[in-house]
Amino acid sequence: MSDLKSQFLDVYAVLKSELLNDPDFEFTDDSRQWVDKMLDYNVPGGKLNRGLSVIDSYSLLNDGRELTSEEIFQASALGWCIEWLQAYFLVLDDIMDNSHTRRGQPCWYKLPKVGMIAVNDGILLRNHITRILKNHFRAKPYYVDLLDLFNEVEFQTASGQMIDLITTLVGEKDLSKYSLPIHRRIVQYKTAYYSFYLPVACALLMAGDNLDKHVDVKNILIEMGIYFQVQDDYLDCFADPEVLGKIGTDIQDFKCSWLVVKALELCNEEQKKLLYENYGKDDSECIAKIKALYNDLKLEEVFLEYEKKSYEKLTSSIAAHPSKAVQAVLHSFLGKIYKRQK
Amino acid sequence: MSDLKSQFLDVYAVLKSELLNDPDFEFTDDSRQWVDKMLDYNVPGGKLNRGLSVIDSYSLLNDGRELTSEEIFQASALGWCIEWLQAYFLVLDDIMDNSHTRRGQPCWYKLPKVGMIAVNDGILLRNHITRILKNHFRAKPYYVDLLDLFNEVEFQTASGQMIDLITTLVGEKDLSKYSLPIHRRIVQYKTAYYSFYLPVACALLMAGDNLDKHVDVKNILIEMGIYFQVQDDYLDCFADPEVLGKIGTDIQDFKCSWLVVKALELCNEEQKKLLYENYGKDDSECIAKIKALYNDLKLEEVFLEYEKKSYEKLTSSIAAHPSKAVQAVLHSFLGKIYKRQK
Ligand SMILES: [Mg+2]
Ligand SMILES: [Mg+2]
Ligand SMILES: [Mg+2]
Ligand SMILES: [Mg+2]
Ligand SMILES: [Mg+2]
Ligand SMILES: [Mg+2]
Repeated sequence: MSDLKSQFLDVYAVLKSELLNDPDFEFTDDSRQWVDKMLDYNVPGGKLNRGLSVIDSYSLLNDGRELTSEEIFQASALGWCIEWLQAYFLVLDDIMDNSHTRRGQPCWYKLPKVGMIAVNDGILLRNHITRILKNHFRAKPYYVDLLDLFNEVEFQTASGQMIDLITTLVGEKDLSKYSLPIHRRIVQYKTAYYSFYLPVACALLMAGDNLDKHVDVKNILIEMGIYFQVQDDYLDCFADPEVLGKIGTDIQDFKCSWLVVKALELCNEEQKKLLYENYGKDDSECIAKIKALYNDLKLEEVFLEYEKKSYEKLTSSIAAHPSKAVQAVLHSFLGKIYKRQK
Repeated sequence: MSDLKSQFLDVYAVLKSELLNDPDFEFTDDSRQWVDKMLDYNVPGGKLNRGLSVIDSYSLLNDGRELTSEEIFQASALGWCIEWLQAYFLVLDDIMDNSHTRRGQPCWYKLPKVGMIAVNDGILLRNHITRILKNHFRAKPYYVDLLDLFNEVEFQTASGQMIDLITTLVGEKDLSKYSLPIHRRIVQYKTAYYSFYLPVACALLMAGDNLDKHVDVKNILIEMGIYFQVQDDYLDCFADPEVLGKIGTDIQDFKCSWLVVKALELCNEEQKKLLYENYGKDDSECIAKIKALYNDLKLEEVFLEYEKKSYEKLTSSIAAHPSKAVQAVLHSFLGKIYKRQK
């Protein structure tokens, strides 16, 4: 494990211990143990990219100078707030999507002892963010901006979830609702704000910046987040499962994927009929027909063209930014995802 | 309808309209309609006591002088934030408790079109609070204190829910977990903070007060909230259903009610066996046996004695408070609940 990642995980242990001894609640032994297990099960098991990128970004905003241990701790605490936010969304998303596994283990709500208590655990995860912020940032001049930022991003994510949920309503599989604009809107709100904008915004606030002055940075990161999700949709179907680490299921799951909305845009009437008849069915023949259609429509090429255009647009937007340090932050994000295979 | 209540409902219409046109999210027509219906279904249909009491309290803190229309609007907006918080908790609580009806209609998640989307709707309700606070209080000197207050109270409520959920875990009906201290802890966190402390704390902040100076007010309101819930538990079994407006089900629901914890405290070995064998069973004979035991143990008298003691303690605590205006607020709350029949 990298040194940075192990330092980051040390901060998790500190934050967890503070939460388990929060003076604003009188824990029973049972409830303290419950939260302890719930956190270990749901918070630190992901790739931690979002959290770690707060430290990265803050360091780049300070021209790469060595950070003090206090700065590392604080950037890590903010990074963990994003990981907690992610855990909160995932615990509840799995319930709503009736999912079975997450990160190679049963979803939290699927554990027999947990069940619907997971709804309240999701809420607790969300509340832990405000506890962490209060414990470590209450005295900072940017404390209120941090609260506003997390509130705004949570609102946007929940709103994106809402359009996702009502567009892909179970029992009402209706491809006519899917289009490029709705795909973009879902992705922008549900994923891009919290995964791309939030880590950089945290770093900017810590560096003493005013977010109102950084609307351009926000827009670039949102575009990057959309590009990232289009890659995700592409890889779900076209990546080598060995490299991707999982077998994609977007076709049978009736997902509003970039591939299906592109197919709907490019297809003729006959192909459209095929899409309507076979998309969203958990049947290997139907899946094969959809994949063959994606090949007929040359979606791989269409994606590579999209990727090229996105990259060019993003690099020129980044180059237009007046601050070299901010450029470095944005380049670092783009470098991590451009042409990714997993 | 009283003039105050109709003014209060007018503010709901304004707040809803702002939320449906929030510039930080690009609604689709479907999603705007969804939120519109979801709000009308879940937010304004309760008794509105918590919300209205912000206006009451703020008025009393200002020695009953006539409030400006701006003050009324703002106190109402804070009152609605509490009603939104309540709606958020209830929508999710009904899912966790597998409840069927709420306020005389099916629970939101029980509607066929809604189902588990209700989880995200709960989250949206919670996020609307921060939108309302930002829209109407961002420029106030007490804005950050309002955010901290709502965050703290939400954290305490969710923590109380947690002990409630893990104490009364489905499939593990175990009376030995129930006791007066655990009952008190559940009630204090799950109900008292948001129902009793929060409305007064909102009014105090609006009046320019510092909450750190009002720990005594908080403690008195928490005691009142506990007394209120003990009444609730008592009425569930002993009130006339005609007057109460519903038929109590705490016995068959295996609730950690004040009555059962008192019974456990007062019973002999034989009666304890009866409690263990009959509590939490949806069977009219079992329920009758529990009720007979409550009579044998004279729980009605025990309650009346508890009520008398609580009232005396509360009135003497209130009398000890240095501010007449704060005394008036506390008396107003106590007056509304003392010896209530429903
Ligand atoms: Mg999901
Ligand atoms: Mg989902
Ligand atoms: Mg995917
Ligand atoms: Mg309930
Ligand atoms: Mg409950
Ligand atoms: Mg009750």
